[in-house]
Amino acid sequence: MSIAGHRAEHFRLSVEGAVAAITLDRPERKNPLTFESYAELAGLFRGAAQDEAVRVFTIAGAGGNFCSGGDVHEIIGPLLERDTKGLMQFTAMTGELVKAMRACPQPIIAAVDGVAAGAGAIIAMAADLRLATPRARTAFLFNRVGLAGCDMGACAILPRIIGQGRASELLYLGRAMSAEEGLAWGFFNALHAPDALAGAAAALARELAEGPGFAHAMTKRMLQMEWAMSVEQAIEAEAVAQALCMTTGDFRRAYEGFVARRRPEFKGD
Amino acid sequence: MSIAGHRAEHFRLSVEGAVAAITLDRPERKNPLTFESYAELAGLFRGAAQDEAVRVFTIAGAGGNFCSGGDVHEIIGPLLERDTKGLMQFTAMTGELVKAMRACPQPIIAAVDGVAAGAGAIIAMAADLRLATPRARTAFLFNRVGLAGCDMGACAILPRIIGQGRASELLYLGRAMSAEEGLAWGFFNALHAPDALAGAAAALARELAEGPGFAHAMTKRMLQMEWAMSVEQAIEAEAVAQALCMTTGDFRRAYEGFVARRRPEFKGD
Amino acid sequence: MSIAGHRAEHFRLSVEGAVAAITLDRPERKNPLTFESYAELAGLFRGAAQDEAVRVFTIAGAGGNFCSGGDVHEIIGPLLERDTKGLMQFTAMTGELVKAMRACPQPIIAAVDGVAAGAGAIIAMAADLRLATPRARTAFLFNRVGLAGCDMGACAILPRIIGQGRASELLYLGRAMSAEEGLAWGFFNALHAPDALAGAAAALARELAEGPGFAHAMTKRMLQMEWAMSVEQAIEAEAVAQALCMTTGDFRRAYEGFVARRRPEFKGD
Repeated sequence: MSIAGHRAEHFRLSVEGAVAAITLDRPERKNPLTFESYAELAGLFRGAAQDEAVRVFTIAGAGGNFCSGGDVHEIIGPLLERDTKGLMQFTAMTGELVKAMRACPQPIIAAVDGVAAGAGAIIAMAADLRLATPRARTAFLFNRVGLAGCDMGACAILPRIIGQGRASELLYLGRAMSAEEGLAWGFFNALHAPDALAGAAAALARELAEGPGFAHAMTKRMLQMEWAMSVEQAIEAEAVAQALCMTTGDFRRAYEGFVARRRPEFKGD
Repeated sequence: MSIAGHRAEHFRLSVEGAVAAITLDRPERKNPLTFESYAELAGLFRGAAQDEAVRVFTIAGAGGNFCSGGDVHEIIGPLLERDTKGLMQFTAMTGELVKAMRACPQPIIAAVDGVAAGAGAIIAMAADLRLATPRARTAFLFNRVGLAGCDMGACAILPRIIGQGRASELLYLGRAMSAEEGLAWGFFNALHAPDALAGAAAALARELAEGPGFAHAMTKRMLQMEWAMSVEQAIEAEAVAQALCMTTGDFRRAYEGFVARRRPEFKGD
Repeated sequence: MSIAGHRAEHFRLSVEGAVAAITLDRPERKNPLTFESYAELAGLFRGAAQDEAVRVFTIAGAGGNFCSGGDVHEIIGPLLERDTKGLMQFTAMTGELVKAMRACPQPIIAAVDGVAAGAGAIIAMAADLRLATPRARTAFLFNRVGLAGCDMGACAILPRIIGQGRASELLYLGRAMSAEEGLAWGFFNALHAPDALAGAAAALARELAEGPGFAHAMTKRMLQMEWAMSVEQAIEAEAVAQALCMTTGDFRRAYEGFVARRRPEFKGD
């Protein structure tokens, strides 16, 4: 599959160089998700393992908000009509989005402005790096719609990012985490003014894209794989993974660049 | 078992609405634990799974302190006379308290003023949410009594709340964590003045009690269950758990409230 | 093996009382690691389980820097000439250093001034406690040399210390973490002025050395063992471990000291 060749139907997608930029684009409703956009996003990330050209994803929302999550009218209403099997199909599909985001070899940068609610907060959480604006409001508000905080991996992933106590508060209360809290707690890597956010995300994406692609993909894979390993197992797994990276051309290019006192040009192989 | 019907012998217990408030109440000795109070607390939390009426616990201490932990004269002295089997019975019982706190479906809010030491610090750690006053001093001081930091789950749970490096420091040194540190490190969710702490804890408990009870219990269960799962396993487990929550009346009530533009009244089923 | 009797070839080693102080000592190159110093360090920590006299390690660098990591000329260049088996031998050896640091019963205190880069950052990360100076710069810069962030356990250990989001940033970007960030994020336990760092590390080491040695070793063992256990398993494991600690002389000494209103003198048995 070629990401550049994908004709996105339920969001905007643009590929520039090695960076694929996804924009959730229904700004009049703060960019909600629908059954269709969930599935298309999951498919895009799942297929990305086959794309050699794209090295980094960014994901953002149009019109000053990131994503308002599953739409009340387009998702919650219809879910109330579903039988057990139909409900499982839905939660399996939303879970598949996070799985696909974590499984794709490309690092994903979320650029969060304004509202990131419900599944919107989850998408930010499931990214590798997160930038935001001071007005970002991130709410894991599942309890507000009568549901549990355990949605799309939140009870496992959020505590590892911001700590078990803070994650418990957000998941039990559904209150919005301010941008300032998100920065202090390690959810966001940095804050930028609203008119600088897209540029900062693009610059960060280019920096990653110019790095050693095979190695970056291995970093992502191991951050995922070692989640529930013992320390000894993790060290063993990394010994194998890093030895593999030492056979790449990028490792040699870095050395040659260092010796020649120039910046290495990584090629991702 | 009915919590409201429990005649507490070794602490105070009052049930108001759906909130059960536990107060450790030997203020002249900073509310130490005894063999009897350990066992009664563990039994109360263990039985709480059978109580439909109570949706949230709070736990606090009387007289400006939270809990001074296992009493030197009433616990440590007698332990020195025990044989191997007797020691295991003790550590199994204290461990059972934390297991029961984590297993009961109701979220637990600890309200920490003054001293929280040893097992007192552990009880705060084992709660779901933690409020404190600026004068709270939380000390995992097991090393001071010649013991290891691995008491009642501390080596597993504390690092997930405040990070591995800070937890290591507290567990090796036994020094008190200040309230300010506890807030900055994510141990405490918020600080309140001493005369406002009880009110803040009660208000937070009411907020949780008015939430979707079945879903809250599921959030607590999954925060516990996913502790050592892989990300993929956690997402799978959450897909099933959330699908189950979508069959509750509270999910429908939330939707109907949203459509009718009124706050939903959750019933916990 | 006696640590005091070890004639260190590739670093300085001094034993004073119960504290063994390691100093990486090639200041003209910021104390890089070599094949030989990796192996000697790993051997020293691995053998430390047999030493009854040393209760704490400190590790620091000479001349205002901690450690610049694997030397470009002495390590990276030669690695490029190795075959697959030879690469695995190298990564297995570097991993063995971290395993040995985590397996030795003595707590390890890293004192970080100036540069801690690559494997230098890893050694700091693998210590139990970390002190630094305001000018410390800690860089997991593996991506800069074309490699992955998964080196010597970093993808497992670093996220547990500073959180998954911040660890991801450092491992993908290879940028230096400032001392201020390291303190705010829980990587460093405290900062000290450069001329006070060695004294602070020595004082902290003496404090630990005067503590209950058997119990400290158990704390370290359980922090390691419980890494990927469930909460229930961890509580069970701690019940056994703490019951064992209750049979030590130090537990009795602490009680007797308390009753006699004097500071207990721990002996480590």
